[in-house]
Amino acid sequence: MQTEDYVPQPVPFVSPPKWHLAHTTWFFEEFILKEYLPGYNVFNPDFSFLFNSYYNNVGKRVLRTNRGAITRPATSKIIEYRHYVDMHMELLLQMKASEPHFHDLIELGLNHEQQHQELLLTDIKYILSCNPISPVYNEEIQWEDQQNESSGFLTIPEGVYGIGFEDVGFCFDNEMGRHKVYLHQFEIANSLVTNAQYLEFINAGGYENFNYWLDEGWSWVNENKINAPLYWHKTDEGWQHFTLSGMQNLNPNAIVTHISFYEASAFAQWKKMRLPTEFEWEVASLQLDWGKRWEWTYSAYLPYPGFCRAEGAIGEYNGKFMINQMVLRGGSCATSAHHTRSTYRNFFHPEERWQFNGIRLVKI
Amino acid sequence: MQTEDYVPQPVPFVSPPKWHLAHTTWFFEEFILKEYLPGYNVFNPDFSFLFNSYYNNVGKRVLRTNRGAITRPATSKIIEYRHYVDMHMELLLQMKASEPHFHDLIELGLNHEQQHQELLLTDIKYILSCNPISPVYNEEIQWEDQQNESSGFLTIPEGVYGIGFEDVGFCFDNEMGRHKVYLHQFEIANSLVTNAQYLEFINAGGYENFNYWLDEGWSWVNENKINAPLYWHKTDEGWQHFTLSGMQNLNPNAIVTHISFYEASAFAQWKKMRLPTEFEWEVASLQLDWGKRWEWTYSAYLPYPGFCRAEGAIGEYNGKFMINQMVLRGGSCATSAHHTRSTYRNFFHPEERWQFNGIRLVKI
Amino acid sequence: MQTEDYVPQPVPFVSPPKWHLAHTTWFFEEFILKEYLPGYNVFNPDFSFLFNSYYNNVGKRVLRTNRGAITRPATSKIIEYRHYVDMHMELLLQMKASEPHFHDLIELGLNHEQQHQELLLTDIKYILSCNPISPVYNEEIQWEDQQNESSGFLTIPEGVYGIGFEDVGFCFDNEMGRHKVYLHQFEIANSLVTNAQYLEFINAGGYENFNYWLDEGWSWVNENKINAPLYWHKTDEGWQHFTLSGMQNLNPNAIVTHISFYEASAFAQWKKMRLPTEFEWEVASLQLDWGKRWEWTYSAYLPYPGFCRAEGAIGEYNGKFMINQMVLRGGSCATSAHHTRSTYRNFFHPEERWQFNGIRLVKI
Amino acid sequence: MQTEDYVPQPVPFVSPPKWHLAHTTWFFEEFILKEYLPGYNVFNPDFSFLFNSYYNNVGKRVLRTNRGAITRPATSKIIEYRHYVDMHMELLLQMKASEPHFHDLIELGLNHEQQHQELLLTDIKYILSCNPISPVYNEEIQWEDQQNESSGFLTIPEGVYGIGFEDVGFCFDNEMGRHKVYLHQFEIANSLVTNAQYLEFINAGGYENFNYWLDEGWSWVNENKINAPLYWHKTDEGWQHFTLSGMQNLNPNAIVTHISFYEASAFAQWKKMRLPTEFEWEVASLQLDWGKRWEWTYSAYLPYPGFCRAEGAIGEYNGKFMINQMVLRGGSCATSAHHTRSTYRNFFHPEERWQFNGIRLVKI
Repeated sequence: MQTEDYVPQPVPFVSPPKWHLAHTTWFFEEFILKEYLPGYNVFNPDFSFLFNSYYNNVGKRVLRTNRGAITRPATSKIIEYRHYVDMHMELLLQMKASEPHFHDLIELGLNHEQQHQELLLTDIKYILSCNPISPVYNEEIQWEDQQNESSGFLTIPEGVYGIGFEDVGFCFDNEMGRHKVYLHQFEIANSLVTNAQYLEFINAGGYENFNYWLDEGWSWVNENKINAPLYWHKTDEGWQHFTLSGMQNLNPNAIVTHISFYEASAFAQWKKMRLPTEFEWEVASLQLDWGKRWEWTYSAYLPYPGFCRAEGAIGEYNGKFMINQMVLRGGSCATSAHHTRSTYRNFFHPEERWQFNGIRLVKI
Repeated sequence: MQTEDYVPQPVPFVSPPKWHLAHTTWFFEEFILKEYLPGYNVFNPDFSFLFNSYYNNVGKRVLRTNRGAITRPATSKIIEYRHYVDMHMELLLQMKASEPHFHDLIELGLNHEQQHQELLLTDIKYILSCNPISPVYNEEIQWEDQQNESSGFLTIPEGVYGIGFEDVGFCFDNEMGRHKVYLHQFEIANSLVTNAQYLEFINAGGYENFNYWLDEGWSWVNENKINAPLYWHKTDEGWQHFTLSGMQNLNPNAIVTHISFYEASAFAQWKKMRLPTEFEWEVASLQLDWGKRWEWTYSAYLPYPGFCRAEGAIGEYNGKFMINQMVLRGGSCATSAHHTRSTYRNFFHPEERWQFNGIRLVKI
Repeated sequence: MQTEDYVPQPVPFVSPPKWHLAHTTWFFEEFILKEYLPGYNVFNPDFSFLFNSYYNNVGKRVLRTNRGAITRPATSKIIEYRHYVDMHMELLLQMKASEPHFHDLIELGLNHEQQHQELLLTDIKYILSCNPISPVYNEEIQWEDQQNESSGFLTIPEGVYGIGFEDVGFCFDNEMGRHKVYLHQFEIANSLVTNAQYLEFINAGGYENFNYWLDEGWSWVNENKINAPLYWHKTDEGWQHFTLSGMQNLNPNAIVTHISFYEASAFAQWKKMRLPTEFEWEVASLQLDWGKRWEWTYSAYLPYPGFCRAEGAIGEYNGKFMINQMVLRGGSCATSAHHTRSTYRNFFHPEERWQFNGIRLVKI
Repeated sequence: MQTEDYVPQPVPFVSPPKWHLAHTTWFFEEFILKEYLPGYNVFNPDFSFLFNSYYNNVGKRVLRTNRGAITRPATSKIIEYRHYVDMHMELLLQMKASEPHFHDLIELGLNHEQQHQELLLTDIKYILSCNPISPVYNEEIQWEDQQNESSGFLTIPEGVYGIGFEDVGFCFDNEMGRHKVYLHQFEIANSLVTNAQYLEFINAGGYENFNYWLDEGWSWVNENKINAPLYWHKTDEGWQHFTLSGMQNLNPNAIVTHISFYEASAFAQWKKMRLPTEFEWEVASLQLDWGKRWEWTYSAYLPYPGFCRAEGAIGEYNGKFMINQMVLRGGSCATSAHHTRSTYRNFFHPEERWQFNGIRLVKI
């Protein structure tokens, strides 16, 4: 990484790396230090405005689409900010180690930061891909080469199942409200779709046949001239793809990634199969090998029974996004260790594909 | 109605009345007469191109957004077309009355036409509302004045319930696949939200407080400067609204209508209640008085277990729209008699509000 | 024409025919009858709002881009309005025939109406062209077949020339301010570019070679996928074009029309010639055969020395449009007889091409 | 300046500082070193693609609007590139000092770089202004405080005048073609409009009265909610403006700047005066004190008689932009010393205002 790489926001859904560094720090300052550390002086009063992401309750903030124009504070100043906040967090923990009432917020802040660690990597990948010279982020990262370790299908019998978090430890509010669902019997793949399988779909004219596509997916394909996963390039030497270790030949045995829900759904339709619901996935997950790709489900991101938005800024974390997005389950190569779990609900719009997502099929 | 009213398409989601008349006729010609009536001559070979709505399998078609520029054929020619097709349908029925294999298509064509009858009325309302002089469509239509006939809440106990069509007679493919769901106990209102109740929300600053809104709903409110239901106008004499019988004073006791999902959801949030899921609605509906407004549910429009798109053009009827839309249940004042039922699934994007839709609440 | 043809506004720069009929009538009512006919009752008080085009001084008005959604008043009602206003204009003239102070306004109203007569025809052509079935407006109009009656080049010597109106009779304010310009010697074509010559440009790759184009013209070509004049269609039987008498084979000997300034300029660049300035054109025009096509000049539409916008609504007629438009000189097949003259200045944006415009070249 | 400031392109018309540094270097490499220095090895073969601005003849290039996403090469690498090219330019000059045939290109390259030096400063100002914390570029730059040194009006008599470059030394191709124009007598201000005068216009409701505005200017004001020059902010302590030395109080005696042609034209209309033509300006300039602000003229940017685009890439320098832009004359506080002259023609679209431009009036 060079300092310049920390700055741009090439598309609205990608944030500048320097913004991620500052925003995750801001979370601890805004919600914990200002509240619980007596006599705490904020590092810089402008930062509250600059690095609020979407918390309307916290006050005015920079428009999301303008983040790439904000060059100050410099990255080095943000690193200082991180050290300052880290130091005060340590102080707070020493002073009040036995007081549990803000431990929940610290846990939330850490999980929040882990989410941004993943975004940081996928955003860096996107930013570097905008350079026509295909720079290398890290030679050693070979995530796009990961392969399946299982095959075949798993049968889950009909019945009433429990859904949602009931463990001890941390979970997000969107996983809570343990409740029952009735599932009919289904057969779910033990493996994810591979590049070779996806190439078959491409070569069979998958991107040219409207019958496989949802109507809005078909418009998306045509308006954006989509004909392959994100980062794929057809060259005279065959298919290549941009990775965090630069431009590489496509490995047919690896698991396909960087596909939208629309593409996942079209692929399933072409295979005369379907995507699992998030409930089927959660029930089956205990017997599946997962964690290399976020897996698209055919479930919209909706509240569980009894879900209720918390009061104030913390209540803005999840609930207000419960429209027009699809649930992904599992976790990916870019997810922090121990961050995800069977009940974890990730969500993106159906056209988004810059995450390391994949496809798992269910028989019809 | 004057001839001019049959022409415009003021926004992409509203079709010209003359187009509705031609398109519903085309359905019978394209899918039944061309297939089953020996020696049938199409009325005009251009019409297949002109009046195809969204069936990619039938061939090229006019872009949906350009319908308002197509002045020919004239409305009178389309009426001729209807008579021609009606006459040949009668002929077909006489000749082949005992042959059941195309009866399903006739039933589908009739139900399709009923759907367009409702759209015709809501589209006419929208078109007339674009005239600054507020013309009257029909003095006698007083739909916006309809009131609730019940009150209070109904409790539905926890348990496994059957969902989907299992009756005899017609239903759409999206209702099929009778299956079981598990519902937790809930309490659902016997009445729909009224204008008076909605005015309370407005007067309480409902449109100015982001805490009530989904994030994309809040953007929609701000970008479009929304501050009341569609067709409402604040005048010096109080609130008025445009109706099919012209501009009228708002009746506080009537059931609110022309609200988007975003508004329904914000209203529920303000009331510290929620919208029902489509499954809760279906189970409760047998004990509810419904049919005056389409009722927004907090269920996304998704396939039922086992749903499978039919091959060919008929398969495009429903399945390809199962993304980014929310389910409405019930039926409205503008729905054809006997067209709807407890299992009927209507669907619109969350910002759409030119249908006669309403809000029913469930306690949290 | 059918009633339906009077309604649409397929693109913002095309107005509905019914609007033209009403707006030209409104001009007489608003600026003459309301002012000078004692006791005049306006036909309908809403019309002032509905049929104001761009006169901010007259009050609020319908947004230009929404004209196609306004179906009321019906065309028949507008015809009534015209008769009503005509009748009162006759009355006014009888009563006050000898009073000259409003004669100027009547003359302006008549010239205004003649301008709209031309727009009416070009707008009707555009509207009918949106019908995939290529309707015929009038079999007898053969304007697109007009040919040159002269050839060769005319030399105009260097010197000081007078520019602008100095005749008796009517002219627009943008022609006034007779003034001197210095012209260097130039040679201007006696004939306009023909379809055959323009086809040579197309066949020589004129639309694919950026060297011929202005930078914004090249963007316009690529963004709109332009590869021929408006209304031209390449078919298996050769080039056809849509005309007021329906779809016709292209006549190579006829004068090319429906080209933008960008195309005229690119054609000239390819020919290693240039377009005349409006001053060169005006000076040469006395010796030229002109009047079949509006002719693009390489002069921007700017005020003459001493030009001054009149106070009030009449001052909005011309002056406020003097930016971002290019001057056309001459007149076209669609121009009313006796409406144009050597000093007449027409003006359009460089991408507009639905008028009957053409190309006259000057040697470099 | 910090490294981060070199990266963003907040709006399409502003280029990243690092791009300016690379592009001006590329000009020497592409047009001179590759052609005239035997055995020259390009610094990096990718740079030809990356740093071509708009020369279609040189090959494919990065879309202008994507420059802000290109983080590589880093600024430090671009500085290396500059040193490498500088060194080779020196070598070339030593080797071939007496050969004059590429001296013209060197002179063009230097003038090209001077143009970008000015843009670099105005682009840096724009970029820094996007930071909500108003950073200081250089405390010592006080350009916005410059004042007039003359007053009153100058009268230029009617007559034939020569226009265009006829001196020895460098000029751009758009100034060439010395030719005669006829000017009528006019009176031109010796001073430029000041902040105090412009504030009068604002306080008189200048931004709310359509009568002062060109039609497209009025749309621009309303769509963009313009109510003051760029960088002005109304605060509780009065008007402030963002400058290269940070946020400052507005100096009423200083010359107004950062106004669009639309604003200049509206101000003149309000004053019942007008802007000069570029010919009037050129003739008067010998007796005027100018050079603090680029001055808007009411002349469109059009070719002089006899202007002819050179063949190849160099021909793309000026000619292809001669549409939809207005001429500015003079030069500004940010212009390199000795770069401008009386015949110099600068040009921008009428809404652009991030240059240091101003208003000089002429009596009507």
